Amino acid sequence: MSSSVSNYVDGGRLWRRLMNLAQFGATARGGVSRLALSGEEIKARAELVRWGHEIGLEAFVDEAANLFLCLKGEQPDLPPILMGSHIDTQPTGGKFDGAYGVVAGIESLHAIALSGKRPRRSILVVAWMNEEGSRFAPGMMGSAVFTKMRKLEDVLRVEDNEGCSVRTAIDTVLAVEKHLPRRSIGFPIAGYLEAHIEQGPKLEAHGKTIGVVTGIQGKRTFRVEVQGEESHAGTSPRSERHDALVSAVAIVDSLQRAMWDKEDAVRFTIGAFTVGPNAPSVVPGRVIFSIDLRHHSAELVRKLGDQIPGVCQEARGKCQVNVQELLNDPPLQFPEPVRARIATAAERLGLPHEAIASPAGHDARYLHYVCPTGMIFIPCKEGISHNEAESITPVDAEAGARVLADVAFELSEQP
Amino acid sequence: MSSSVSNYVDGGRLWRRLMNLAQFGATARGGVSRLALSGEEIKARAELVRWGHEIGLEAFVDEAANLFLCLKGEQPDLPPILMGSHIDTQPTGGKFDGAYGVVAGIESLHAIALSGKRPRRSILVVAWMNEEGSRFAPGMMGSAVFTKMRKLEDVLRVEDNEGCSVRTAIDTVLAVEKHLPRRSIGFPIAGYLEAHIEQGPKLEAHGKTIGVVTGIQGKRTFRVEVQGEESHAGTSPRSERHDALVSAVAIVDSLQRAMWDKEDAVRFTIGAFTVGPNAPSVVPGRVIFSIDLRHHSAELVRKLGDQIPGVCQEARGKCQVNVQELLNDPPLQFPEPVRARIATAAERLGLPHEAIASPAGHDARYLHYVCPTGMIFIPCKEGISHNEAESITPVDAEAGARVLADVAFELSEQP
Repeated sequence: MSSSVSNYVDGGRLWRRLMNLAQFGATARGGVSRLALSGEEIKARAELVRWGHEIGLEAFVDEAANLFLCLKGEQPDLPPILMGSHIDTQPTGGKFDGAYGVVAGIESLHAIALSGKRPRRSILVVAWMNEEGSRFAPGMMGSAVFTKMRKLEDVLRVEDNEGCSVRTAIDTVLAVEKHLPRRSIGFPIAGYLEAHIEQGPKLEAHGKTIGVVTGIQGKRTFRVEVQGEESHAGTSPRSERHDALVSAVAIVDSLQRAMWDKEDAVRFTIGAFTVGPNAPSVVPGRVIFSIDLRHHSAELVRKLGDQIPGVCQEARGKCQVNVQELLNDPPLQFPEPVRARIATAAERLGLPHEAIASPAGHDARYLHYVCPTGMIFIPCKEGISHNEAESITPVDAEAGARVLADVAFELSEQP
Repeated sequence: MSSSVSNYVDGGRLWRRLMNLAQFGATARGGVSRLALSGEEIKARAELVRWGHEIGLEAFVDEAANLFLCLKGEQPDLPPILMGSHIDTQPTGGKFDGAYGVVAGIESLHAIALSGKRPRRSILVVAWMNEEGSRFAPGMMGSAVFTKMRKLEDVLRVEDNEGCSVRTAIDTVLAVEKHLPRRSIGFPIAGYLEAHIEQGPKLEAHGKTIGVVTGIQGKRTFRVEVQGEESHAGTSPRSERHDALVSAVAIVDSLQRAMWDKEDAVRFTIGAFTVGPNAPSVVPGRVIFSIDLRHHSAELVRKLGDQIPGVCQEARGKCQVNVQELLNDPPLQFPEPVRARIATAAERLGLPHEAIASPAGHDARYLHYVCPTGMIFIPCKEGISHNEAESITPVDAEAGARVLADVAFELSEQP
């Protein structure tokens, strides 16, 4: 029976690959700094390709620099099954966010190859371009373009803080990878599976190994620009200042009160906050900050998000404020049949599992719009993520890969 | 009588020199970008030396790259009178901050030379090294070292953002100026006069041409570091976050309330504010911000400044906070006899004048600690300074130079 491919999953090999990959961009404090399309990511991608070739997988890229490794099926003309995630990280990220899903996908293909079984459909592992969005905002660019949710030409124009465009960065990556076949964007897919660390504390707290992900919470993001006037810190009286920091602090304070919920289910974050000219003796003339708002209720995400521009205007004091919405992704539910397959596979393998909602966004969001999609979570220590201290156990990593391998093989067998 | 030297002050010549000097580092928007010890400043210094030679002044430098032009007195062994300011600017500075005091000093010496009178003591013009402190922090380096308030070797170690040290930058300047005699630092001075634009709106508003500066307000600066914990914006509940930005905003809000004064005489500025890792989907783990506190009352500067660490601790919420004091310069009063001479000279010349406190810091602060010191302010348009729009009138510029010339000559005649 198909479930048996998971018997060939090797937890030691999986763990060694995870630790190996974490060396690309390794930080002194045990984390990883591997920004999207950076030199470090280029080296990490070469390592993935090398592993793929050892297993007998065919590597190729698309115009958005999404990287694929393909295990050819018996009927390669049928739409393939896709597994994967991303290998870019936050500036001070951990070893597992994203990387786990890609490496577990490779381990699944390795197991299937070793099992001697050949899947009906081809099965691919993908490393999506720029999921994190910290170098080029917003994130999930590769999957958004692949699924036609965003236009490639719009994405190519985005620039990082140094003025380097996505176009230039992709050109650099693809020039290094010029030996790989290039495919155009967005071929048909029969199903998508993404294994990921939970990035929350629930599985660990409940003693569960596998999270069967029910869906992803809604997310809206904004860019707020506060425009004041530079003046001399020693001479300009308070009453005559147009201090952009003073206004920004008042706005942030008002936003925090407006977004507060008793249930502590609203996720409201101001993560980026930049002051200009940022000199100790100059009254700030400009502040730009980000807003990240998430919740599982579509109604609440709509209601709270719609309040944001008004709250900013009301609290702006003597400065001008401009609020721009960058992203509005409603909450979503993954299809029940895929969730059932994941739960059944975990059950068969004797792994404790539970249904769990994803509070974080994932590339699976965009794939969900074009094919049956599911996600498999494994526990991460104390729920810590987007942090150099991110930690998982080899046992959980292996368990997640077993479920992934079995479900991927099952899906690939569908006519 | 000694006052007559001001009759030889030529407002047209003074203005031409000001406009000429503004060409070194001129910006497209009419300002000046001439950072301390930069190539632009080296060229501007050469121009000062050229003017000095035309007038018959002797130029020399000291080891801190302070540049002097000397009009020899009849008793050159007596401690000289010093006039001057600085010719470095902020990155987007104007034509007059600092430059006015140096060029007015040269015009004063030019007038004295043309008058045919020879002063008893020598009179020197100085362009102090790095007053602004925007390339190498903190500023007023040349005058601090000259007056032994800071050690030369400490100052030489300071680096700019590109890793260039003051030592390297001074070496470059002095190599270009190797033809100039070099003197060691800190010779005795009988008096110091600094003419400067007001950098505030009072003289213009009151219709006064000359400000007789009473003193410089006290200044304390601090560096506040808020240490939280990075976490995932989509997953970590508010109750479990240690959000450094949330704590920093609460601290800033508390500080603003603690420093608020009805009279609007306290100058409290948070000019630099940096968030880490500064990514939209990461809960901030660290915020570092600056505090600049100034007031004319020593008692109030002490009291308010001493409150700062406690206010920060009380408002820190779930994060840690560390407060470090960087600078504590008490308010100072220039000696009454020097102020009286300035007021009398203005009166004699028929120039409307008033006593005025300096809210900004100047090199005169350090000279005050070693010799009788005074400052002469002239109006600047709308009080705008540290800005490319800085503006003064040729008439006011000439008036200030007349007062400067007369007072300098008077002081030089003292036995």
